[in-house]
Amino acid sequence: MATEAKSAKPIRLAIIGVGKIARDQHLPAIANDPCFELVAAVSRNAVVDGVDNYHDIAELLAAGHDLDAVSICTPPVGRSAIAMAALDAGLDVMMEKPPAATLSEVARIEAHAVAAGRSLFATWHSREAAGVAPARAWLADRTVERVTIAWREDIRRWHPGQDWILEAGGFGVFDPGINALSIATEILPGDWVVHRADLQVPEGRMSPLAANIDLTCGDIPVTAAFDFLHEGPQQWDIVVETDGGTLKLSMGGAILEIDGEVTEATDAEYPGLYAKFAALVGSRSRDVDVTPLRLVADAFLVGRRTIVPAFAW
Amino acid sequence: MATEAKSAKPIRLAIIGVGKIARDQHLPAIANDPCFELVAAVSRNAVVDGVDNYHDIAELLAAGHDLDAVSICTPPVGRSAIAMAALDAGLDVMMEKPPAATLSEVARIEAHAVAAGRSLFATWHSREAAGVAPARAWLADRTVERVTIAWREDIRRWHPGQDWILEAGGFGVFDPGINALSIATEILPGDWVVHRADLQVPEGRMSPLAANIDLTCGDIPVTAAFDFLHEGPQQWDIVVETDGGTLKLSMGGAILEIDGEVTEATDAEYPGLYAKFAALVGSRSRDVDVTPLRLVADAFLVGRRTIVPAFAW
Repeated sequence: MATEAKSAKPIRLAIIGVGKIARDQHLPAIANDPCFELVAAVSRNAVVDGVDNYHDIAELLAAGHDLDAVSICTPPVGRSAIAMAALDAGLDVMMEKPPAATLSEVARIEAHAVAAGRSLFATWHSREAAGVAPARAWLADRTVERVTIAWREDIRRWHPGQDWILEAGGFGVFDPGINALSIATEILPGDWVVHRADLQVPEGRMSPLAANIDLTCGDIPVTAAFDFLHEGPQQWDIVVETDGGTLKLSMGGAILEIDGEVTEATDAEYPGLYAKFAALVGSRSRDVDVTPLRLVADAFLVGRRTIVPAFAW
Repeated sequence: MATEAKSAKPIRLAIIGVGKIARDQHLPAIANDPCFELVAAVSRNAVVDGVDNYHDIAELLAAGHDLDAVSICTPPVGRSAIAMAALDAGLDVMMEKPPAATLSEVARIEAHAVAAGRSLFATWHSREAAGVAPARAWLADRTVERVTIAWREDIRRWHPGQDWILEAGGFGVFDPGINALSIATEILPGDWVVHRADLQVPEGRMSPLAANIDLTCGDIPVTAAFDFLHEGPQQWDIVVETDGGTLKLSMGGAILEIDGEVTEATDAEYPGLYAKFAALVGSRSRDVDVTPLRLVADAFLVGRRTIVPAFAW
C-alpha cells in the first residue's frame, strides 16, 4: 500500500528560466503529465501563475520546498552553475539543449551527477520529433550514400530580441542548427566528423548568422546549410539518399517522407522528453550524449569566419 | 631463442611530415632509441637522408616496406586521414600534438584503432618535461588555491613562415598554448572547465595571436595568458599557489621551483615519448587523452574575438 502510494506520487519539479521555450513547450508539457507537479519557478523577470516564484536558484533552494527535480531552460551560458547547485542540493536535473555552453562544463556536470547518484537528462528535443524514430528504423537496413541538411529560419520570428544568441557562447545559427545535428546523429549512428565550416558572423557580434559545414558519418558525405536570415517558408529538412530510396525529414523531423510517401504525426517533442525524464528519475539513471555539441565545437574550432553586415532586430 | 630475437627486434618506423618539429626532435629521438629503426620518411618537400622517401602515405604504403608503425608530425589539419590510412594498413600510430584538428576526428581515429586492435598514442610532449612528474607528485598532497599560466613566445622565432598556424584549424597561439594546458591538466587532475576566453585575431587571419582564458579545475581558479608576439625573454610558466607553498614550472616544464628552490633537469621530452610509444606497441594498448584539445575547442566555442592589426612575418 505504502509502495503503491509512493510510486504514484508525482515528481515535485521547479522550472528554472521562464522564457519563450519554457512558456511555449515546457509548461504545457508539465501541466499535461501526471508524473510531474510544478511547485516553483525561477526567473529574473518572469512569473508563472499558480506556483511560488523566485529570482534565482539560491532563493529557490533556501525556500525549503520538498523538491525532487529541476528543469533548466535558461540560455546555455550560466546553465552549468545552476545544474551544479541543483545536484549539490540532491535534485535530479533535466536540461534544455545544448546542456551547457562548453563540452568541459557538460563533462563536469555529468561527473558531478554520477558522484551524487542523481539523474541527469541532457535533452535534445528534436530527437523526439515524430519522424525521427521511424526514420532511424528505416535507415538501419539501407546503405546511405549522401545526407543533405538544410536548416533555414528567420531569427526575428523565432528568437525576437534574444541578443544572447549572437553573443559569445550563444551559438548563433547553431542554436537551431544543433537540432539538425541532434536528429542526424540519432537517425545515423556512427563516427561523425566535421571537416570544414564556413561561418558568417555579422559585424559587431560574436556568433554566426549562417554556416555551411562539410561532415562525414563514417564514409558518408554530409553537407549542412544553416541560415538564420531566411524569410518566407521556413525550412528544417534532412534528406538521406540510400541504395533503397530517398528519405526526407521536414518541419524539424515532424514529417517523414520516403520516396514521396508522406507520414505526418502530431508533434509530441516535449511530452516525450518529460516522459523520458520521469523514467530516468525512476531508475536513477542518466542520458547525456554530447555528440551534437562536439560537432558544433569542432565547427567553431576549424571554421573559417567571414564578417557580414551588422544585424539589427 | 626465437622469442628473445623477436623481442629485441626494433619497431620498423616511418615518419610522416618532415618539418621543423620532426628535424629538431623526432629524428634525433628515433636515432637514439634502439627500440626503433627508421625505415622511411614521407614529405611533400623534404627528404631525410639514409632512408627511403615518399611524397604521401599512399606511396609509402604501396612501396611494400615491412613497416610496424608510423609517427605523424604533419600539421593537425589532414592528420586524421593519414592516421586512418595507417591504421587501415595495420600499423601502430603515434601522433604529434594535437592529435587532430577536431575532437570528432580524434574520436573517430580512436574508435578505428580500437576496432583494428592497433596501438595509438596521442602525444603531449610537454607532459614529458622534466619538472612535470615531480610537480604532480608534490601537488598531490596539497590544497591548491590558484593557478596562473603565462605562455608568451615569439611566433617569428619558433614558427617562421608557418602560415598554417594562423589559418582555420591551425589553433594560432593555442598551438603552443595547448602545451601549457597539457601540463596543467597533468599536474592537476580534476574537472577542468573553460568559463571565458578573449581571443585576439589578426586582420585577415583565422586563428588568434593572443588569448586570455578563465578556467577552473574543480573549484580552483585558473587564468591563462597566451601571447604569440612576445619578444625578449620567452616565458612558458605555470605557477601553482597552495596551502603548503608555491610551485613554479618554467621553460615549458623543464625547470621546477618550489618555494624558491630550483630543480633543473635535462630535457628528454621526445625520448620519453618514444619510450612510451614502444611500451604501448609492446602491450598493444592506447593512450589518448583529449582533455587539452577539449579545453581549446571550448575556448573557441565561447571565445570573444577582437580583430587586431594584420600579422606579417
